[in-house]
Amino acid sequence: MNEFIQKRNDLHVFENLESNVRSYCRSFPTKFQRASGYQLWDMEGKAYIDFFAGAGALNYGHNPPEMKKKLIEYLTMDGISHSLDMATEAKESFLTRFNDVILKPRGMNYKIMFPGPTGTNSVESALKLARKATGRQTIMSFTNAFHGMTLGALAVTGNKFKRSGAGVPLNHTLSMPYDGYMGKDVNSLDYIESFLNDSGSGISLPAAVIVETLQGEGGINTASNEWLSGLADLCKTYGMLLIVDDVQMGCGRTGSFFSFERCGIIPDIVCMSKSIGGYGLPMALTLMKPELDLWEPGEHNGTFRGNNLAFITATAALDYWERPSFSYEIEAKAVLVRDVLEEIVIQVPELKGEIRGRGLMQGIAFEPGIAERISILAFQRGLILETSGTDSEVIKIMPPLTIERAGLESGLQILKECIHDIANEANLLIAQQ
Amino acid sequence: MNEFIQKRNDLHVFENLESNVRSYCRSFPTKFQRASGYQLWDMEGKAYIDFFAGAGALNYGHNPPEMKKKLIEYLTMDGISHSLDMATEAKESFLTRFNDVILKPRGMNYKIMFPGPTGTNSVESALKLARKATGRQTIMSFTNAFHGMTLGALAVTGNKFKRSGAGVPLNHTLSMPYDGYMGKDVNSLDYIESFLNDSGSGISLPAAVIVETLQGEGGINTASNEWLSGLADLCKTYGMLLIVDDVQMGCGRTGSFFSFERCGIIPDIVCMSKSIGGYGLPMALTLMKPELDLWEPGEHNGTFRGNNLAFITATAALDYWERPSFSYEIEAKAVLVRDVLEEIVIQVPELKGEIRGRGLMQGIAFEPGIAERISILAFQRGLILETSGTDSEVIKIMPPLTIERAGLESGLQILKECIHDIANEANLLIAQQ
Amino acid sequence: MNEFIQKRNDLHVFENLESNVRSYCRSFPTKFQRASGYQLWDMEGKAYIDFFAGAGALNYGHNPPEMKKKLIEYLTMDGISHSLDMATEAKESFLTRFNDVILKPRGMNYKIMFPGPTGTNSVESALKLARKATGRQTIMSFTNAFHGMTLGALAVTGNKFKRSGAGVPLNHTLSMPYDGYMGKDVNSLDYIESFLNDSGSGISLPAAVIVETLQGEGGINTASNEWLSGLADLCKTYGMLLIVDDVQMGCGRTGSFFSFERCGIIPDIVCMSKSIGGYGLPMALTLMKPELDLWEPGEHNGTFRGNNLAFITATAALDYWERPSFSYEIEAKAVLVRDVLEEIVIQVPELKGEIRGRGLMQGIAFEPGIAERISILAFQRGLILETSGTDSEVIKIMPPLTIERAGLESGLQILKECIHDIANEANLLIAQQ
Amino acid sequence: MNEFIQKRNDLHVFENLESNVRSYCRSFPTKFQRASGYQLWDMEGKAYIDFFAGAGALNYGHNPPEMKKKLIEYLTMDGISHSLDMATEAKESFLTRFNDVILKPRGMNYKIMFPGPTGTNSVESALKLARKATGRQTIMSFTNAFHGMTLGALAVTGNKFKRSGAGVPLNHTLSMPYDGYMGKDVNSLDYIESFLNDSGSGISLPAAVIVETLQGEGGINTASNEWLSGLADLCKTYGMLLIVDDVQMGCGRTGSFFSFERCGIIPDIVCMSKSIGGYGLPMALTLMKPELDLWEPGEHNGTFRGNNLAFITATAALDYWERPSFSYEIEAKAVLVRDVLEEIVIQVPELKGEIRGRGLMQGIAFEPGIAERISILAFQRGLILETSGTDSEVIKIMPPLTIERAGLESGLQILKECIHDIANEANLLIAQQ
Repeated sequence: MNEFIQKRNDLHVFENLESNVRSYCRSFPTKFQRASGYQLWDMEGKAYIDFFAGAGALNYGHNPPEMKKKLIEYLTMDGISHSLDMATEAKESFLTRFNDVILKPRGMNYKIMFPGPTGTNSVESALKLARKATGRQTIMSFTNAFHGMTLGALAVTGNKFKRSGAGVPLNHTLSMPYDGYMGKDVNSLDYIESFLNDSGSGISLPAAVIVETLQGEGGINTASNEWLSGLADLCKTYGMLLIVDDVQMGCGRTGSFFSFERCGIIPDIVCMSKSIGGYGLPMALTLMKPELDLWEPGEHNGTFRGNNLAFITATAALDYWERPSFSYEIEAKAVLVRDVLEEIVIQVPELKGEIRGRGLMQGIAFEPGIAERISILAFQRGLILETSGTDSEVIKIMPPLTIERAGLESGLQILKECIHDIANEANLLIAQQ
Repeated sequence: MNEFIQKRNDLHVFENLESNVRSYCRSFPTKFQRASGYQLWDMEGKAYIDFFAGAGALNYGHNPPEMKKKLIEYLTMDGISHSLDMATEAKESFLTRFNDVILKPRGMNYKIMFPGPTGTNSVESALKLARKATGRQTIMSFTNAFHGMTLGALAVTGNKFKRSGAGVPLNHTLSMPYDGYMGKDVNSLDYIESFLNDSGSGISLPAAVIVETLQGEGGINTASNEWLSGLADLCKTYGMLLIVDDVQMGCGRTGSFFSFERCGIIPDIVCMSKSIGGYGLPMALTLMKPELDLWEPGEHNGTFRGNNLAFITATAALDYWERPSFSYEIEAKAVLVRDVLEEIVIQVPELKGEIRGRGLMQGIAFEPGIAERISILAFQRGLILETSGTDSEVIKIMPPLTIERAGLESGLQILKECIHDIANEANLLIAQQ
Repeated sequence: MNEFIQKRNDLHVFENLESNVRSYCRSFPTKFQRASGYQLWDMEGKAYIDFFAGAGALNYGHNPPEMKKKLIEYLTMDGISHSLDMATEAKESFLTRFNDVILKPRGMNYKIMFPGPTGTNSVESALKLARKATGRQTIMSFTNAFHGMTLGALAVTGNKFKRSGAGVPLNHTLSMPYDGYMGKDVNSLDYIESFLNDSGSGISLPAAVIVETLQGEGGINTASNEWLSGLADLCKTYGMLLIVDDVQMGCGRTGSFFSFERCGIIPDIVCMSKSIGGYGLPMALTLMKPELDLWEPGEHNGTFRGNNLAFITATAALDYWERPSFSYEIEAKAVLVRDVLEEIVIQVPELKGEIRGRGLMQGIAFEPGIAERISILAFQRGLILETSGTDSEVIKIMPPLTIERAGLESGLQILKECIHDIANEANLLIAQQ
Repeated sequence: MNEFIQKRNDLHVFENLESNVRSYCRSFPTKFQRASGYQLWDMEGKAYIDFFAGAGALNYGHNPPEMKKKLIEYLTMDGISHSLDMATEAKESFLTRFNDVILKPRGMNYKIMFPGPTGTNSVESALKLARKATGRQTIMSFTNAFHGMTLGALAVTGNKFKRSGAGVPLNHTLSMPYDGYMGKDVNSLDYIESFLNDSGSGISLPAAVIVETLQGEGGINTASNEWLSGLADLCKTYGMLLIVDDVQMGCGRTGSFFSFERCGIIPDIVCMSKSIGGYGLPMALTLMKPELDLWEPGEHNGTFRGNNLAFITATAALDYWERPSFSYEIEAKAVLVRDVLEEIVIQVPELKGEIRGRGLMQGIAFEPGIAERISILAFQRGLILETSGTDSEVIKIMPPLTIERAGLESGLQILKECIHDIANEANLLIAQQ
């Protein structure tokens, strides 16, 4: 405990100078210095296993050596660092490589837009484009969706706390029930279609639907393949564009490069960011079907569209996707995670855990309070784990995709111990009463 | 001309794969490879003098060696690259250094927020905070303002073309005349106050006023010191917060670190981005008076708040600001620019040029068409120059602050020749009629 | 048919001078001159039975003699005709009588507001008050709701055609499924509560819910008593005000004076208009619980709040409500209507009619097209009948409450014949194929 | 004073049963019973001269005998009272007569719409139509405008107190300076045009401009003929429709039938209500150029569009406009009013009165507080006078147009005495200090 206080004291610079808005530094109260692969080290040299992966921005782990090498080479030769949307060699390499490794093999002919370097930039550009292309204004989004914090993206985000931060009404949107929201046996698409199909339902036909195939921030809710392809059909029927926000679920988080490959749909627009830059560097893409590329030059722009250091690492990261085995490796790790989670849930039935997710985005939902307690305990024992859901009710396992088996097992072992300890605490408490 | 066509062919990857939205690569049709200081080189080794400076993101020039060295060291030692808003050594160094070099010497006690790595992120966070702090919804902005492309920031941007890209009405804002908009002898603040003071004027009292002290994108319009301090007084009288968007004008662009130092005002909130990262790396800050730091933890967030590579170069960049001489050097270069511009305007009276701006953000306004023609000619002769204003009517001189005198003179010489050539063309045309 | 053309010619003044927006004169193409009780006569002396009753504004029939007498007396003695919201003897009489006959016997202590003389004025005032009282902005309304045509009321109206007339987005509202909308076995309140109760559902807590207990314009959809009281409970739980729009269903249309008496709820706010004036004269009321009477003087106003001629007839109309037998008489007529409708539906099963409604607001839903055809045929045979529903799929039986049994039977006989003829036409068509 | 208290007690029914929102009954605390011409009598038989005229709804005085006669005849013969928008003899007579007496002689070919019986209904319909016809959303309105209390009309109303009653942001509108708002020597149209003409001004091109030629509620501000025709030109240049809200200023209030006849403009849309019904009965019109009659049948509607009693009196009222002398009589009375007001202002220079208005809508602006005091004193002496302006700073003289010279002189005499008494009070107060 003394050690803990000492460390917090160590954070006085942040407490004194940084805004109250800071958040993760409160959950993980230490000062980090170095990182490599699936591990971080703080100033005192203590190592942490990373089951958080920069909220999905570090799918290839911290400072992967092959990207680091290329980055240093590029810096050394005075490669262009910042180029707005001017043409550079680094950008050309990325475009070519992305087309060759990702788009062409999947039969996709998306046009590529650099909308500014963050996920919310990509979402804002997608919403603009959908409204422009259709002449409609409403965007349909889903319960528990998370799409970003700028005003346009926030309007399609479900979280009440985040929404109320806007300080103005968030309009021109329509929040509809996600897969499973109305109960296991109800297909929420039937309800949605009744609204779309009814000229008395009090809504306008949406320009687009924006959806995450798996809601990472909203509680690790997974949409089924049937639901997703049903949604794509609905979009066609009612002239709505389908936007998949693959900011967190893309770049292999659920196994395939795009998260929607599992259900065979081709979205009209795809939003990418987080791990697209490979090295945790700010970068984002908006992919759109060629017929939707209705932008006037400069109609959407931004200073940091041309983060060439990110182009270098992003290009290098695509090497992973040349090997078909990469997806299989992710899947194998996902099975390992699933097995341990199932074991845990069976071992501590009193905590009534419910396993959620797929790929390397899995978790267990508990009663409120438990997941937060797990995260605190795990951090003390050297494991970084975030919670998810509007009530922080889900513990989220989200390691780098490249984590070694040993690291994954160590992390899961710590997780298991923490959950057992919490179960024991709880049982003790009950016994004492 | 052949050479020109050849180069454009060279850009086929961009033409085939990138969205129509790309823009600067059309004005500067070559493929850049390397850069250093005030110069860029394209793939064919042709050098260009940079009077554009990444639209203000490269105030310290391309790849400044001292920052580059630190960046490579940091990468080599596996420093944290991406940290969300967790505490890191690199972030602590930046916070401490920013406080010591910038805030303390100016008697400022701002709290520092990392709102996501772009200017529009910073503006969105500032607007949210102002609405939260005051409980009001309207934000007052100015004619020809530019604040960003996400929905909240776009609503306070003046440009009709950019605004219409939103596809939805942009509300909760009030556009008022900037200094000089109503003519030289009219103080637009009188008009604004008549609206604020009148319970029948049809507006709501704004939560805040967002202002650029010099409008870089909107035509290089400079607000006078008197107008700016009058605006600050108006804010106090009517309980509105004063937000200065220093994204482009900060970091020394007009001479001092903050652009508003010249008029003695202390804004309630300051937005910074572009050159704050030092090396062209995505980074942004929102500064707020401590009593306004009303954020709940996590109420605004974003994946790339913690771009630690930028923290490293941002910290190094602050070295420039330890020396009081840095501002004087900028001012000396500004005088040189002003002298040449005045000379040009006198030499070609037929073009009716009007000099605008201050510091190293200066330009000449012409009849529509001329500035664009200058930009094309200059590029062919190895000088990169952007236009400004909604009709691209202003040619903008915006070199790195660190540009050597020789480079500045070379660039200005090219500019002078281009303008003379255009004047000659025009005179020839008239003579032929 | 010749006769029909002749009559339309007769309408040339309307066709030449009146806007295209006119509507009922197209369905009922003749020029009316006189009316009494349940009958109207056109310029040629042809009589029509009125099963439309001014869309609910003529619950006491045309020109009821006892009101007419009082109106003429008042005019003769130069009683105040128009008084804004000044105090007049006529207004005092109405207030006293409304309190004595309606409010007191029902244990209600509503404060009474005169919001302007139309239903939409009353709805607008109710929405303002709910927003003011709660500090929230969203209003929840229901699928197929109809609340009026001014911008605030239109935003809570379901009909897409009417909504699109606004020309601006209709925001700050939330359209939710009405009773029965999700199927007979699904309680739509469960779905609604899941949205209210979930901090990730993407909505703001509403200031109020506005509901019709029976949707007259939206297709004669009836909410059950259980659903209505469940809705009232939901309002209490989530701090939302309950607004009942009784503009069409009030004043006895469904049997009791207020339509909600059948389920024992006491709304926070009640909107009344149409028949409240008794004689078809423009008048409206907004009733609010005393603790909600938070208006500042003059915060909502309107020139025709004080239509004293309407106060005279409105006061006289309350005489009907002194006799408990009035409700029983309505109910007896309702049973007669229901019996005939059931008989019809059984006799022509091929038309698949579905009986809807209660009290003297009943109808039969058919496949699209049939109800409109019935309305045309009936008009030719001297019966005025409107359709309802967004696809005009319901034929609506809505006579004056005071209609004599003979008149009701005659009208129903015409209706029956029309439906049989249409069934025969349809059968013939099928036989011919 | 005793008498005053007694009378207020008399109003207990209103105090107990009516909402706090009631307003004029507080300024004129007595209970009115009868009225004729320019006079009202309260329950105690006390007579009042009416310089308020139902806020413009009683231009022809109270219960004008010739209209009363026709109304009673119509009631006696069981004429249609309420007809929605069905064709009736009474409506046909009005349409024909309005065309013959008003439109044709002025060379106008407006289509006539009955938008619901109030001014705000007419304004809402006009805004809808303008948005539909142009495909634009913004409506330009003016400082100190008053257009109504429903959400669409309120959004173009200037008064902050009324606006805040909305409880939601009022958007899609643009408030611009009225004639004279920027000072006597500044033409506010220049400023407005600079905003319209500038693609960087931060506004969208409006669908329409809505304007009162004289602002009755907003402080009796008169737009000059030059300004109004300049505004009409601006509308043409920028493709905006010109809507004149003649609800209060039409029907002869400023001399001519339409208030805009003085400057030769032909608005695209005209809103009329208040005195159009002749007898203080609720009725409204929206006039539109034939090419703007783009309504679909039923796209805007309302229960009380067909107030046939009002059609009867409205038709009769048009008799006044057959005689050209009617306008001259109004003008003669206006001169009389002006003379007395000028006399007063000269006699009590210490009150610094400023005469405003034209026709029979004139007034004197004072320092805040004085006009309200005049209104109270005048009421005690048997004269009903309203104040105007957001600070109630203007005393408003607005008698029936038909007032006899004797009545006008008596009223003005009372006004003069009240003002002198207030000046004496004030002088006494100063002397005592």
